[in-house]
Amino acid sequence: MSGIVGKKKGGPLFTMATRTPLADVNRYKVPLTIFLLIYMDLLNCQQYTIPFKSPSDCRDEEFFDISSLSCVTCGPNQRRSTAGLSCICKTGYQTLSSDKASIACQQCPADRPVPTVYKQLVWLQVFSNLTACQALGNMCVMNMHSFSGVSTDACGLFNTIFRSRAALSSTQDISYWRANLPWLYYGDQPGLASRVLQSNPVPISFSFRGRNKNTDIKLLAAVYNIGGEFLRWEKVGGDNLQLCPETTSKQAAAFNFGTAYQESVKLLGSHPEPLFYDVFMDLGGGENRKLLPLPTLVYNQQYNGQFINQGEISILSMKNWYLSRRMFVVDTLSGREKSISSLPKVIRVASSVKIRFRLVPRTQEGQVYPPLMTVTYRDVAITDINTQTVSVSWRTRYEMDQNEAHIKTDVSSPGPLICVCSQTALGVMGGVALLYSLLKTVSWKRRIASPLIDLETMLKFLLFYAGDLANVFFAVTVGTGLYWLIFYKAQQFVSVLLPLPAQEEQFVTYVACAFALKAIQFLHKLILQVSVDVFFIDWERPRSKTSRTVQAAGELKRDPSPVSIWRTYFVANEWNELQTIRKISPTFQTMAVLFFLEVLGFSNLALRDPMADLQRSPDAYTPSYSLILRYGLAAALWLGIGLLQGIFFTVFYEHFVEDKIRQFVDLCSISNVSVLLLSHRCFGYYIHGRSVHGHADTNMEEMNNNLNRESESLCGQRGLLPNTQIQTFQVSLNDRLRLHYDRIREQIGRRNGPSRLIDASSAKQFEQRARGYQTMNHFLGSIIDHAHHEMDYIVKDKLMFERVIGMEFLEPSEKSIFYNDEAHSFSDVLFYGNEATLLIFDTLFFCVVDLGSQSFVLAAVLTCVQQMIFRLIRNALGRKNLVSKTLVDERFLI
Amino acid sequence: MSGIVGKKKGGPLFTMATRTPLADVNRYKVPLTIFLLIYMDLLNCQQYTIPFKSPSDCRDEEFFDISSLSCVTCGPNQRRSTAGLSCICKTGYQTLSSDKASIACQQCPADRPVPTVYKQLVWLQVFSNLTACQALGNMCVMNMHSFSGVSTDACGLFNTIFRSRAALSSTQDISYWRANLPWLYYGDQPGLASRVLQSNPVPISFSFRGRNKNTDIKLLAAVYNIGGEFLRWEKVGGDNLQLCPETTSKQAAAFNFGTAYQESVKLLGSHPEPLFYDVFMDLGGGENRKLLPLPTLVYNQQYNGQFINQGEISILSMKNWYLSRRMFVVDTLSGREKSISSLPKVIRVASSVKIRFRLVPRTQEGQVYPPLMTVTYRDVAITDINTQTVSVSWRTRYEMDQNEAHIKTDVSSPGPLICVCSQTALGVMGGVALLYSLLKTVSWKRRIASPLIDLETMLKFLLFYAGDLANVFFAVTVGTGLYWLIFYKAQQFVSVLLPLPAQEEQFVTYVACAFALKAIQFLHKLILQVSVDVFFIDWERPRSKTSRTVQAAGELKRDPSPVSIWRTYFVANEWNELQTIRKISPTFQTMAVLFFLEVLGFSNLALRDPMADLQRSPDAYTPSYSLILRYGLAAALWLGIGLLQGIFFTVFYEHFVEDKIRQFVDLCSISNVSVLLLSHRCFGYYIHGRSVHGHADTNMEEMNNNLNRESESLCGQRGLLPNTQIQTFQVSLNDRLRLHYDRIREQIGRRNGPSRLIDASSAKQFEQRARGYQTMNHFLGSIIDHAHHEMDYIVKDKLMFERVIGMEFLEPSEKSIFYNDEAHSFSDVLFYGNEATLLIFDTLFFCVVDLGSQSFVLAAVLTCVQQMIFRLIRNALGRKNLVSKTLVDERFLI
Repeated sequence: MSGIVGKKKGGPLFTMATRTPLADVNRYKVPLTIFLLIYMDLLNCQQYTIPFKSPSDCRDEEFFDISSLSCVTCGPNQRRSTAGLSCICKTGYQTLSSDKASIACQQCPADRPVPTVYKQLVWLQVFSNLTACQALGNMCVMNMHSFSGVSTDACGLFNTIFRSRAALSSTQDISYWRANLPWLYYGDQPGLASRVLQSNPVPISFSFRGRNKNTDIKLLAAVYNIGGEFLRWEKVGGDNLQLCPETTSKQAAAFNFGTAYQESVKLLGSHPEPLFYDVFMDLGGGENRKLLPLPTLVYNQQYNGQFINQGEISILSMKNWYLSRRMFVVDTLSGREKSISSLPKVIRVASSVKIRFRLVPRTQEGQVYPPLMTVTYRDVAITDINTQTVSVSWRTRYEMDQNEAHIKTDVSSPGPLICVCSQTALGVMGGVALLYSLLKTVSWKRRIASPLIDLETMLKFLLFYAGDLANVFFAVTVGTGLYWLIFYKAQQFVSVLLPLPAQEEQFVTYVACAFALKAIQFLHKLILQVSVDVFFIDWERPRSKTSRTVQAAGELKRDPSPVSIWRTYFVANEWNELQTIRKISPTFQTMAVLFFLEVLGFSNLALRDPMADLQRSPDAYTPSYSLILRYGLAAALWLGIGLLQGIFFTVFYEHFVEDKIRQFVDLCSISNVSVLLLSHRCFGYYIHGRSVHGHADTNMEEMNNNLNRESESLCGQRGLLPNTQIQTFQVSLNDRLRLHYDRIREQIGRRNGPSRLIDASSAKQFEQRARGYQTMNHFLGSIIDHAHHEMDYIVKDKLMFERVIGMEFLEPSEKSIFYNDEAHSFSDVLFYGNEATLLIFDTLFFCVVDLGSQSFVLAAVLTCVQQMIFRLIRNALGRKNLVSKTLVDERFLI
Repeated sequence: MSGIVGKKKGGPLFTMATRTPLADVNRYKVPLTIFLLIYMDLLNCQQYTIPFKSPSDCRDEEFFDISSLSCVTCGPNQRRSTAGLSCICKTGYQTLSSDKASIACQQCPADRPVPTVYKQLVWLQVFSNLTACQALGNMCVMNMHSFSGVSTDACGLFNTIFRSRAALSSTQDISYWRANLPWLYYGDQPGLASRVLQSNPVPISFSFRGRNKNTDIKLLAAVYNIGGEFLRWEKVGGDNLQLCPETTSKQAAAFNFGTAYQESVKLLGSHPEPLFYDVFMDLGGGENRKLLPLPTLVYNQQYNGQFINQGEISILSMKNWYLSRRMFVVDTLSGREKSISSLPKVIRVASSVKIRFRLVPRTQEGQVYPPLMTVTYRDVAITDINTQTVSVSWRTRYEMDQNEAHIKTDVSSPGPLICVCSQTALGVMGGVALLYSLLKTVSWKRRIASPLIDLETMLKFLLFYAGDLANVFFAVTVGTGLYWLIFYKAQQFVSVLLPLPAQEEQFVTYVACAFALKAIQFLHKLILQVSVDVFFIDWERPRSKTSRTVQAAGELKRDPSPVSIWRTYFVANEWNELQTIRKISPTFQTMAVLFFLEVLGFSNLALRDPMADLQRSPDAYTPSYSLILRYGLAAALWLGIGLLQGIFFTVFYEHFVEDKIRQFVDLCSISNVSVLLLSHRCFGYYIHGRSVHGHADTNMEEMNNNLNRESESLCGQRGLLPNTQIQTFQVSLNDRLRLHYDRIREQIGRRNGPSRLIDASSAKQFEQRARGYQTMNHFLGSIIDHAHHEMDYIVKDKLMFERVIGMEFLEPSEKSIFYNDEAHSFSDVLFYGNEATLLIFDTLFFCVVDLGSQSFVLAAVLTCVQQMIFRLIRNALGRKNLVSKTLVDERFLI
């Protein structure tokens, strides 16, 4: 494919023999050694900065050298031309000779005036040599810097000239920048790219806030036209390199340090004259303003037909990179066939421009390495020049090495620290979790009084470990999220930058692990809760036994005054209602989180920019969200509001409004009904509800009298032991007691709870079970009353350490042990006692939905629905369990 | 202030004597009569359209007349010049004479060639006369069309020339467009503006969807430079008139019919050469493409120093308007002092451009009147040309006459119909509501058995009326909202346009009224509910009376087997829990609405554009929200989901899962406890709970036996009348019964419910009250048992009509009346039975918050909080009421 590149204003036409196609792979042998030899002496880590000069800065006897972008003194008897871009002879002097780059002036003979036409000739185009080199360079740039060792194309020609100038001094002390030539290439030594990009920091520091706030990235470009003429210095942004037509304020965000900018748009093909840009970063400095050339990576650059600049950014691929300079945005010239006035068949567009900033490791002062500009060109075949669109994108990216802490050990900046921290924390806490889970398994083995290590034990261990590991993952991820939220948003001098979206994947995996493990723990707890063994012990004894004896002869089978079952129904009903009571209000929780995130605008904190404003102007640029920040924010809010609610309900509500758990214990006492809950084979809870008045099955007047007497302390105290108040216990049963219990339990049976449609045989069955129920009632009552000496129990306090690790040290071999438990820990078999697990599960559910959908509203909706469903399941299964264990008809559990 | 306006490329400098300041009011006497005389003959309602011609459309012997924008035939022996904008003599002919606007050509003498210099002279610029007029016109435009009758300024000069050309034929058959002159002014007859803007519809029709979809507003502008040269035809949009730098897709929204476009932005002052635009609307038509000139209203135009084009758009102010043509965007020239190369001290910017479309009344085919373009210029004093910003805005507005239905009666289009409809509906339904409220008041008077019309009656009437009126307002507003939602979004040919934001105020007032009235009704119901009279009748009689007699001698005062109060406690506890049960799940309701609005994107339907897409591209332009559409959408969703939930719970859940109300009735029957609820003095509800087994106070075995026997139909039925099932009744008590009831009620007392801290005197008091309780129990039991003949009752069915209007026709004078009530209407004293009121209240609460904050999330959060608060209040007050009315200790209501 051949093209003709023309210059407007009647300039000569340069012909390129080849135009490098984007995907064509030519394989030539390379005279690489030549390059290597030439560049070998340039292996120094210099900081490439140049002072800023514009034509107006030059003095009268200087001209602005468009190649070196500096002021150069004219020769003797010469002065600056009007445009200031070359020298001409002073008045009274004539041009003697002009070699390719300079002129010599001699005094005119006194009698002859200087012919005007001479002056013009001299002018055409001295200047032509300089611009011709620039024009050749531009052609090479249009060819995407590709060359192949044979000198038939523009870049090959450029390199030939470049090599021939090796003897001349380099421009601006930069060895790749030869006098009178544009700077197009860095050297090709292996590893040069990483040295250029990662050796010397840029000598300015970025700061997000405070007195030294500096977030402006000032980019400046020297602009040349296709003919190689220097046009002007231009500030980058707005209309030149950034093609996307956005509002000024949004475009400006691309040059606000720390704001991950990304714009992508379909452009209607507008086809201006191609312009060429040498992009510099303005380092400021008042009078001695310095510029730093931006190394450019042309993604499509080929070397001997191979794409050398592609592949992921890594130390490995960086080795092969060829950095270069100068870029163009649209080339509509070289795609024209036959004549310069014909319409282009194909145009080449810089379809993607990326600027990548890299933070200096362990910096405390917001220093960055020279930013890398990556340009990707695209050829667009023109079919309809008026309606065709080209999609272009502009991105600014900020990174820091998130993994460097793995390699180096002297961690002094918080940036990598968190990486180490989270990894270490995961390791350490994972270990602790393992021990804790082992302990739990041992405790569980004790509580079920089984010494064997079997498959069930292993499974149980894994289940415990899932829960503990979930907590570890949760803690680490929330910690990391909060760390980023706080350190990134609050730092003054830039010392940490957000992980890139690709780097967030590991984090998301952690969150997913945490959620999966927590779900396992939650389901495990749910199953345990709905299979807990429960029995209500009614202490009420029939009144007027004597009268029954009198009547016994007449009505042998019928007890004239049976103990009413209604108190048991009442207690069972209340117990059923307690199942899904929670310490906090889940609806309020969801709503409050949503309020903070979506109404107060906290969600704006998760945007990928350093601003910490809650409200954004609708005109402002909105960067993408950081998943880590979203997670940190949502989890922190969820936990924070949960904690506040917990405090409110524990400190205020339960003391001054109502405490459902205390109410239940109170009710037990008033109704003369005790509750025995066995969560394990030999471990459980006991609520002592024996009425201090002996009878509770009475009329309203007496009930009231009883309550009055109790409030006036006219009767005994409610505790199990005389003169104590403690009614709630953890019980550690011995094996003998449990065996006896199981025998009676068998009679009651565990299946076929009463239902509305009950047939005759099952009615008989029920009679048997009811008798079993009475036996159990009697048996448990007598146990509590110390009536069975061989199955006696003792009451003691639990050790602090026992409480902490949740395990009993004493084995109930001789006697069962009742541990005083004022903390109402029987709520562990209810939702109420597992608020932490539920809250974390909800938090993770919310966050996982949000990470998947990036919608807090959807997350809130699904969390609510999730809570509803699990509440329904828990209620239904819990009620079913209660029916089968206590023989209370379902109709009384409403 | 004087300025020099120059023309680039060495054109002559035009000097204006005065430049009209924006706020300076010069008071000259006007020779208005002259204008009036001239324009008097032009009083015809012509449709101003012109055919589209561009220079390339003209044939060889025609030139493009830049003044009339048409092709004009050259004179004899002439041909078109190269540019096509004038005529020159054919080869072999020489220019003889040239008057100001045309040339004459004569054959050259055969021996002499045509001198080239002649040709050039002829060329300079013939043409100059045409462009000079245009340039003069442009100066007048830069002066914002202001003139003052004295001819010292540009507009004055223009008008003098204009008048002098009255004899010449007008251009393009438009009487205000004189040959060789630009068209700057419409006439100044009173009322011309409204005739131009509202007489003839534009001959194209807009359609939102379907085969004839047409929403493109194609605007075309003839562009002139300051010197008056015609540059080109340009499509309006993109870079020319629309200054806001937005993405192409967003800018395009300004020309999408029906999309209320508004962009406002601060521009960095870029200062191009001023260009002048004659804006036309492209009517299409293929070969015979027609253009419609857009009438322009220059907001700052002065006539004799007075601003004539300001003030609201109304028929009154329209009378004084001076419509004009041609506009500019930025004028950086006339603000330069001394020389054309100096920087401007002040620039004039078209800071606001509004295009207003007005729908033809009663159109079914999407016809509009000629759109009016309003331009407001602003002078900006330049202090720092590089950083200074100017705010500019661009708006497209669509209106229809929302009130025309008031004036005209022949309503055939749905647009105004809704206006009539809503007004009529409000009237008619308001009347019906009045009647219904009166009926309710009468019914209430009957139910409290008071015939007097006193202040309380009036108040009660007002309260009823508030509720009914709220429903009317609600129905009308939802209807209106839905109407706009459906008709605006679904119409094919445009026949209705949304009310403007200012016109929505009345609607918002209606919604506010509806909410306020509904809140009154809700609070009223709440107060009634928490003060309802309730009594639990225990049918249980002590067992073994005989045995008690035997023992009576020994224990005289103590009943050995008192009837247990626990069944009453159980029923009271359940009743307490029923208080705030709702027919639907309010949390699910809120979440579902939020899900539809914010997750599925239904909120996008409320945007002010005709699109009905749920998902919008982030690149697309987002217009503002219409409050009416937001309300219609939210209310419709809320009601729709509420209805679906209602159906689900009524049809599925209550049949197959659980029905709390039936469960309660069931429980009453099992527990041998009846419930009497008196919502009015002589009206209330009765739940018959007499156990069919005689006794309920028994042990589990017997309970189970009883239940089994009942399920096998081995015992009687539960109904109040023998062999019936009906347990629930509405009761209409007669006065005698109520008086008796009140006497006993007094004993029970209404204050000082038992509390934990109870002293001795109150203990005694309680004993009295408990005795009162027993009396009441006995009394009511005997009433139900027909034991009191003077206070007997009858059971009957309610008439259908009685049910519908909620009023009893029979007065219970002799006997009380028990109406069969299988519908469990006793739930009217619970939240459960008032779901409609609650749902509408919630809907209105949600909508009112949203209208105030334009945030559905906030509305959802506050609605949830509101529900929580009212539930808490209802629960607390309801429980307090229950304690005081039934003497059940608070500790049993958990």
